[in-house]
Amino acid sequence: MPPRSRSRKLATVKSPTALKLPLPPRRKLPPDLKKYFDLCDEKIGFLPNVLHAYSFDETKLRAFIAMYNDLMLGDSELTKLEREMIAVVVSAANRCYYCLVAHGQAVRDMSGDPALGEMLVMNHRVAKVSKRQRAMLDFAHRLTTTPAEAGEEARQALRKAGWSDRAIWDIAAITGFFNMTNRLATATDMMPNEEYHGRSRE
Amino acid sequence: MPPRSRSRKLATVKSPTALKLPLPPRRKLPPDLKKYFDLCDEKIGFLPNVLHAYSFDETKLRAFIAMYNDLMLGDSELTKLEREMIAVVVSAANRCYYCLVAHGQAVRDMSGDPALGEMLVMNHRVAKVSKRQRAMLDFAHRLTTTPAEAGEEARQALRKAGWSDRAIWDIAAITGFFNMTNRLATATDMMPNEEYHGRSRE
Amino acid sequence: MPPRSRSRKLATVKSPTALKLPLPPRRKLPPDLKKYFDLCDEKIGFLPNVLHAYSFDETKLRAFIAMYNDLMLGDSELTKLEREMIAVVVSAANRCYYCLVAHGQAVRDMSGDPALGEMLVMNHRVAKVSKRQRAMLDFAHRLTTTPAEAGEEARQALRKAGWSDRAIWDIAAITGFFNMTNRLATATDMMPNEEYHGRSRE
Amino acid sequence: MPPRSRSRKLATVKSPTALKLPLPPRRKLPPDLKKYFDLCDEKIGFLPNVLHAYSFDETKLRAFIAMYNDLMLGDSELTKLEREMIAVVVSAANRCYYCLVAHGQAVRDMSGDPALGEMLVMNHRVAKVSKRQRAMLDFAHRLTTTPAEAGEEARQALRKAGWSDRAIWDIAAITGFFNMTNRLATATDMMPNEEYHGRSRE
Amino acid sequence: MPPRSRSRKLATVKSPTALKLPLPPRRKLPPDLKKYFDLCDEKIGFLPNVLHAYSFDETKLRAFIAMYNDLMLGDSELTKLEREMIAVVVSAANRCYYCLVAHGQAVRDMSGDPALGEMLVMNHRVAKVSKRQRAMLDFAHRLTTTPAEAGEEARQALRKAGWSDRAIWDIAAITGFFNMTNRLATATDMMPNEEYHGRSRE
Amino acid sequence: MPPRSRSRKLATVKSPTALKLPLPPRRKLPPDLKKYFDLCDEKIGFLPNVLHAYSFDETKLRAFIAMYNDLMLGDSELTKLEREMIAVVVSAANRCYYCLVAHGQAVRDMSGDPALGEMLVMNHRVAKVSKRQRAMLDFAHRLTTTPAEAGEEARQALRKAGWSDRAIWDIAAITGFFNMTNRLATATDMMPNEEYHGRSRE
Repeated sequence: MPPRSRSRKLATVKSPTALKLPLPPRRKLPPDLKKYFDLCDEKIGFLPNVLHAYSFDETKLRAFIAMYNDLMLGDSELTKLEREMIAVVVSAANRCYYCLVAHGQAVRDMSGDPALGEMLVMNHRVAKVSKRQRAMLDFAHRLTTTPAEAGEEARQALRKAGWSDRAIWDIAAITGFFNMTNRLATATDMMPNEEYHGRSRE
Repeated sequence: MPPRSRSRKLATVKSPTALKLPLPPRRKLPPDLKKYFDLCDEKIGFLPNVLHAYSFDETKLRAFIAMYNDLMLGDSELTKLEREMIAVVVSAANRCYYCLVAHGQAVRDMSGDPALGEMLVMNHRVAKVSKRQRAMLDFAHRLTTTPAEAGEEARQALRKAGWSDRAIWDIAAITGFFNMTNRLATATDMMPNEEYHGRSRE
Repeated sequence: MPPRSRSRKLATVKSPTALKLPLPPRRKLPPDLKKYFDLCDEKIGFLPNVLHAYSFDETKLRAFIAMYNDLMLGDSELTKLEREMIAVVVSAANRCYYCLVAHGQAVRDMSGDPALGEMLVMNHRVAKVSKRQRAMLDFAHRLTTTPAEAGEEARQALRKAGWSDRAIWDIAAITGFFNMTNRLATATDMMPNEEYHGRSRE
Repeated sequence: MPPRSRSRKLATVKSPTALKLPLPPRRKLPPDLKKYFDLCDEKIGFLPNVLHAYSFDETKLRAFIAMYNDLMLGDSELTKLEREMIAVVVSAANRCYYCLVAHGQAVRDMSGDPALGEMLVMNHRVAKVSKRQRAMLDFAHRLTTTPAEAGEEARQALRKAGWSDRAIWDIAAITGFFNMTNRLATATDMMPNEEYHGRSRE
Repeated sequence: MPPRSRSRKLATVKSPTALKLPLPPRRKLPPDLKKYFDLCDEKIGFLPNVLHAYSFDETKLRAFIAMYNDLMLGDSELTKLEREMIAVVVSAANRCYYCLVAHGQAVRDMSGDPALGEMLVMNHRVAKVSKRQRAMLDFAHRLTTTPAEAGEEARQALRKAGWSDRAIWDIAAITGFFNMTNRLATATDMMPNEEYHGRSRE
Repeated sequence: MPPRSRSRKLATVKSPTALKLPLPPRRKLPPDLKKYFDLCDEKIGFLPNVLHAYSFDETKLRAFIAMYNDLMLGDSELTKLEREMIAVVVSAANRCYYCLVAHGQAVRDMSGDPALGEMLVMNHRVAKVSKRQRAMLDFAHRLTTTPAEAGEEARQALRKAGWSDRAIWDIAAITGFFNMTNRLATATDMMPNEEYHGRSRE
């Protein structure tokens, strides 16, 4: 069966991307990064491939982790689920396989709603979210697909839906961040961990 | 938990669409259609919502079933899986939630590859399919997104990949069919059966 | 004169498409289909090429006829002219030569307005139709060009213009149908009967 | 019959556009322009509405006539029919009703091929023109729809098809000219003379 | 230094375009055109390359000058700066290097605002112009990018912003004109005079 | 003179964005950040507004600086000028005023070619760069405008032009980065320092 053999092959492949960049074995990483990777194993059950892919260069890996953790886990008016919802809507507009698999799972998991992640992946307009969240997702979609047009009118729509200027920064920054990672992942053909697919489906 | 309550609400809703069209109880259907619906229950485990939605009008329901069954189950050079792959790629281009959920599940099920359906939903270019299948999917995508440009050059690409003129008709007809159903489903906000989501995930 | 020679060549060509599919002589068709084709000759003056093209496969031909006749000739709030207007607007968006020629003629004929068919072919926004019809055509155009966005807001615009939910189904179904046939016709390079061009011009 | 009454109304309307600009009676025009208009009546059978529309300002009218006559009737490697073919393909891309009606008729008339004008209006890719003409039309279409991308590669395609640098200037200039007039006609809702519709149909 | 050598090369090149069209030395031009070119030298400091490029054909050169001078320098409700603003916004949408350099400089010069020209080149939505001017620029942008859609609704937006029907003609005509010249300049790879770059920067 | 008064107003404005986020006076920043800002003053002559804007949150500011400095100033096969060229081409596709002004100046400055920055801002296809650089810029443009399509074929074009897999990562990462910052800048209406405009023009 080809799919099975494909999965097995991925497991032994050195890099999760199509680029030939030598990735260090985890034991050769500096202690703090090794510890961070071990923590991922413990909390998530595996090391997300994006971190593995970035490990060819410590500086880049640290910069990525710092920005990601601030935006997705730091203080914000947005709940963590809302930030993941933005991640999926942006990645859907850009059709980024890696980010849709990883963050689609996060939305399914955090929301406890197996259909919500699918809706955001497929067409966020069908999702029954609050008006406030819908405004947030429409803004993220618009800023992704027609960035030159997301000006004062778009900000006013967010304010009208109840978002503060501080939240607008975060919505814009998270939207921007996934417009970055989507492009890096697609340009390098980064493949997500197979474990995401079966999770949070019921 | 909102998602649960949402599922429960859907289960008691009369119509799977946003249109207020009175749908007959199954027992009031003509015997042959009732039998067909019962057969769906038996084989699939439930009645696909699209059939339920169409049941407000017998003539339309019969025409839909006849065309669907011929294209997706009748004789063709294309395997049934290949036809489902086209269904998903077309529905992805059109971002049709109903068709992506239903036919994405079919691809996962028929291929035994839980990731393949996701790849076709998210970005068919990352799927590791045969050259012949890739040509088929590229044609379906092109005919969907820029129909005016899918002429002789596009047909030659299919022929070069090994498809006969008879197969080209089928690829075009199936691509056309889902361009029809995608629009009907989105325009009526047709919701897929919840059962699809958890199936064929491992 | 090149056009004349071109017409003559078409007249002797076996198939109205670019695909090499053997088409049966009419006398070899089953009696009911032969009778249907004869009726076309009688009523229209010729057999529309789309039916000739479909005749390589009886099942497909019957399914096409059944769906076409229901949508375009069956009961509906939409007049037959309105259905033809949708056919032309959809085909204009998709730039389908076959359907524009055939259904453009139908609009010219049914409306008695030689300019109306041309307006719908060229840019439906310049046509002086009723507000109700304009809403119908705008919906069909939008559902054709940006299907993912034709949701509740678009349905409300139709309802506001006076269309019932039952009519919305028909508008969506006819729009969907021509999105199917446009793609089949373009992908097979189906040529319309030359007779359409000169008709209903005054 | 609405279409008839519509035609009659147009005949008595003062301006062929939606703008309220006072147009002088023909007898008040300077002798040379009056003579030019009379010549149009004689040769074409009517005064093209674009000239009528421009007559609110003599300087603009003269500038338009000078540029039009040089491009469409002056010396060039392109035949007059080829220039009209460009006019139609550009106007089709821009969906300009006025120019499609007027220049579509010119293509039908000059070619003696009632279908050729329709093909260029509806989808120039289906027209059976020479390779040289196809290259010319593809260039005009590309320069119209994605002007920023029509650079050296596009010029080389024209040269390869047999066009000189002098011809490339003319193809670009005619394409540019109709990109101008299309926008002026659409922005002012300029209506073409009804007489065009029935002409050159057989 | 490559840029310097590049500038020097341009200075000795016979044509400012990529087309091999023999351009006459200025002394061989008819006296009135020679005088016009000398006047450019005197007023602008150099002969704009577009005039040099057009000089291969007197008739075309005269037609271009006549139309340009009427639209950009003749009577109009629009100030000369406003007309240059339209030129830049249209050329930005079409990404025409020649016109952006030449008319961007004109906006910087006429407005005395070194940033305004840059804003219009880069994204006119960020420019702090009057509501009336913003409506004018939005119309020009819309008529350029989606010409088929710039109908009555678009005209009403201009009227609401205070523009007369006479002004609407001029806005449409200037927008159309630069849609023409942008295409001619890009299709011939016309290069602007280097002198524009450094001017009006403070 | 309106432009002058506009400049003066900007100088006294508290925030360089349209968001009401309280920005700390520089003396209240932690010593290392204060030192970094002072270094900017010294080296550039002013503090780039993007850093000022980010200063409402130290964590975000540090993460931005770390990623920016690694990508634009760290080790890479790409020269610093080449990285700035990508920044401009990406920002041109997204029409980001802030980034075009700031990085357009950097290209003018680093290349010593006042026209090169303008070409990349307006239409990178007209710039006379090396084949290797053209491949890099075409990839960045494609990854920006159609991210879903930038796969193996696009990577092969880069490899063929002489870029290593390590360089492909950097090209993708820098392209991604400016797709992020473009969106943050546009969504917050971030204005660039006025000093950029006049610099490096000769």
